[in-house]
Amino acid sequence: MSIPVNPPSGFRDFLPEACARREFAVRVISEVYRSFGFEPISTSAVEDLAVLTGKGGGENEKLIFKILKRGEKLDAARAENGELSDLGLRFDLTLPLSRFYAKHQSQLPHPFKAFHIGPVWRAERAQKGRYREFYQCDADIIGSESPLCEVEVISAILTAFERMGFADATVHLNDRALVYAALAQAGVPEDKRGQACIALDKLDKMPRESVEAELLGLLGAEPVAALQKTLMAEASGAAADLSAYEAAGPQSYQRLAWIAKELAASGWTHVRVNPSLMRGLDYYTGPVFEFRHAKLSGSLGGGGRYDRLSEKFGGPAVPACGASIGFERLLLLLEESGAGAASTGPEFCVLVFDESLREKSLELARHLRAVGKTADLYPGTGKLKAQFKYADAKRAAHALIIGPDEAAAGMVKAKNLKTGEERLVKAEELVAGK
Amino acid sequence: MSIPVNPPSGFRDFLPEACARREFAVRVISEVYRSFGFEPISTSAVEDLAVLTGKGGGENEKLIFKILKRGEKLDAARAENGELSDLGLRFDLTLPLSRFYAKHQSQLPHPFKAFHIGPVWRAERAQKGRYREFYQCDADIIGSESPLCEVEVISAILTAFERMGFADATVHLNDRALVYAALAQAGVPEDKRGQACIALDKLDKMPRESVEAELLGLLGAEPVAALQKTLMAEASGAAADLSAYEAAGPQSYQRLAWIAKELAASGWTHVRVNPSLMRGLDYYTGPVFEFRHAKLSGSLGGGGRYDRLSEKFGGPAVPACGASIGFERLLLLLEESGAGAASTGPEFCVLVFDESLREKSLELARHLRAVGKTADLYPGTGKLKAQFKYADAKRAAHALIIGPDEAAAGMVKAKNLKTGEERLVKAEELVAGK
Repeated sequence: MSIPVNPPSGFRDFLPEACARREFAVRVISEVYRSFGFEPISTSAVEDLAVLTGKGGGENEKLIFKILKRGEKLDAARAENGELSDLGLRFDLTLPLSRFYAKHQSQLPHPFKAFHIGPVWRAERAQKGRYREFYQCDADIIGSESPLCEVEVISAILTAFERMGFADATVHLNDRALVYAALAQAGVPEDKRGQACIALDKLDKMPRESVEAELLGLLGAEPVAALQKTLMAEASGAAADLSAYEAAGPQSYQRLAWIAKELAASGWTHVRVNPSLMRGLDYYTGPVFEFRHAKLSGSLGGGGRYDRLSEKFGGPAVPACGASIGFERLLLLLEESGAGAASTGPEFCVLVFDESLREKSLELARHLRAVGKTADLYPGTGKLKAQFKYADAKRAAHALIIGPDEAAAGMVKAKNLKTGEERLVKAEELVAGK
Repeated sequence: MSIPVNPPSGFRDFLPEACARREFAVRVISEVYRSFGFEPISTSAVEDLAVLTGKGGGENEKLIFKILKRGEKLDAARAENGELSDLGLRFDLTLPLSRFYAKHQSQLPHPFKAFHIGPVWRAERAQKGRYREFYQCDADIIGSESPLCEVEVISAILTAFERMGFADATVHLNDRALVYAALAQAGVPEDKRGQACIALDKLDKMPRESVEAELLGLLGAEPVAALQKTLMAEASGAAADLSAYEAAGPQSYQRLAWIAKELAASGWTHVRVNPSLMRGLDYYTGPVFEFRHAKLSGSLGGGGRYDRLSEKFGGPAVPACGASIGFERLLLLLEESGAGAASTGPEFCVLVFDESLREKSLELARHLRAVGKTADLYPGTGKLKAQFKYADAKRAAHALIIGPDEAAAGMVKAKNLKTGEERLVKAEELVAGK
């Protein structure tokens, strides 16, 4: 039986060029988050299943990669037909952050501004652009009810996009409380509001007619007619009636309007209140938001306020607000724009003329590296033709050769791999940067 | 039932200070690897179980965290009492690299110098200093038999240690082929050499007497007496008889001596041939090496040549040599030395006097960030005392306040949090760096 050389379905390898682009994005995002006063944290990839399941995870719970129990516990579980798994891979970074905060809050500044960058795993059916292992880059503020939190989190992410060349990203704002208020105003009874939200959330993925039919069946004609001007306006391509929306929940609306105004004052012109924005997760309690870009269908990330997630861990409700960058989609934009591409490779690639001169090459590489230069060394003594091919593949700027003549004269032959120009130079001069 | 706030046993959270130290180490190691011409790669955290099991993994196979099958496949496996798992978490980075190379080699330079930094997982019993999730930082050269590979890999890692303040790390060298040759010379029959190696590998963990008793039972008195001068010398604190060792396998020994000589020529003075060095993994075929430091028991990393691991993936034998940094142990040294500690925090922490002046603070933070300064903003409008406490906890250099008087005068109050000195300054001057 042959062993697979592909990663499992939905998982990926990254070659050097892709790695360089991902590292570039992580570096820019980290620097921007830091400049806003967010501090890095990290949690374990593996969590107790009890943390991952139950209130908070919503749809994502079905997507947990569960880890098999081990040893005697596994034997017992099999014998009793019991639970086979005790641990699971995290499916987002928000739930782990809430656990982290519940555990470590006495050691943290208050409020706590955190950022967290790392992989998450979801057992989804693999399809184009959807992976089972992908990165998230979250920024969160825990412990403050102020709408400054929303402004900070959204500004930080828009700044990161801008630094990568995507100043034209848009942000859509809504408020979960306002959605519920609009449903109430439209006459939707309390016990049907959750279902209505789930149906409304499908408006950007499914034909409008089928969602309307579902809502008509669920709510009847009158409420659906009322919702056409607010929560359903986006799907019909009409502008939402924002004054009707404001009337449903004046306080929530004014908070949202303040956030939009401050973002505009910060120079972010692509900001809009969008009553049809739902965001899938059921732990949101207030403002929600989503980043979009004209070149992508779907979102470039999003987030919102989740003031009650902390209760899952037995503590009191702690106000919290955070957002996640859609890292893999951002990488698609970066790939297209060419930003963050691998730089030019090493400054020097030192070739090895033959075994008798191997030490000369090693010495030259050593001296170049000692002064901080990047110097690749061909790891062998193959034909020079293969070695030049290697230097080209590494995108080195210069190939350096010490053959018998050069060695006798105390010189190095330096070939500029772009122009093809060759020159003889003393090793000390190369090291000195001449 | 309360939900756990701790990460699972053997797993860890990292607070901002620890994160900063880990990022420092990753950055230094990456920069050094790059300067030697190694290129970054990344593989999936999850592999098919068939990749992780079978030849190559050795003892580590028992330590795989296996992932439960999902949906119908799980139901079928339970019903048939079959294999419950199809995937697993990687337990090292070498096996994934071999799979990666088998898959992607046509797109890679030849030979291929790769580095790979990331977490691995082992279902070991958790104990002090031993974790179930930990980082590895590997450098490998695939496709070359030259001992230059060993010199490059070892030099790169010693350079990384040196940059972090540990120029006094030592490297121990041995050769798997030479060990077998010495066993043959001592009269150990071929079918007992594997077992003998396993017993010898225990010499640095168990009392010498019990290992000797095991070897006597396995081999008899004469071979054990012969091995006392070579493979067993280290355990008795005596210097090994290197000329006897050389006689066992002159060619392998000379290669090892050349590697040691070139490392010494590179300025690495703490290099020694140590016949008792075994290294646990059964895929090593030639030179093996291990890094140590006086302040740590056990190793600071290690590696070796594994010329036949590629055969696992159905291809021909491809020569390969690589090493791994013991990242978690390195972090212990860094923690003790204080290197890589979090820097001073943001240059500014902008406080928020009250809600009516909130926008003034937001504007000031915005202008400071726009010119590249790090400016935290207190996310709320609490009491100033709490806000100063926050600024201290963030290790900010200066707290900035715009109260009613400052706002009226168009000024900002800047407090140096180290000296306590306060001054009034125009916002534009702060932004201009005055």
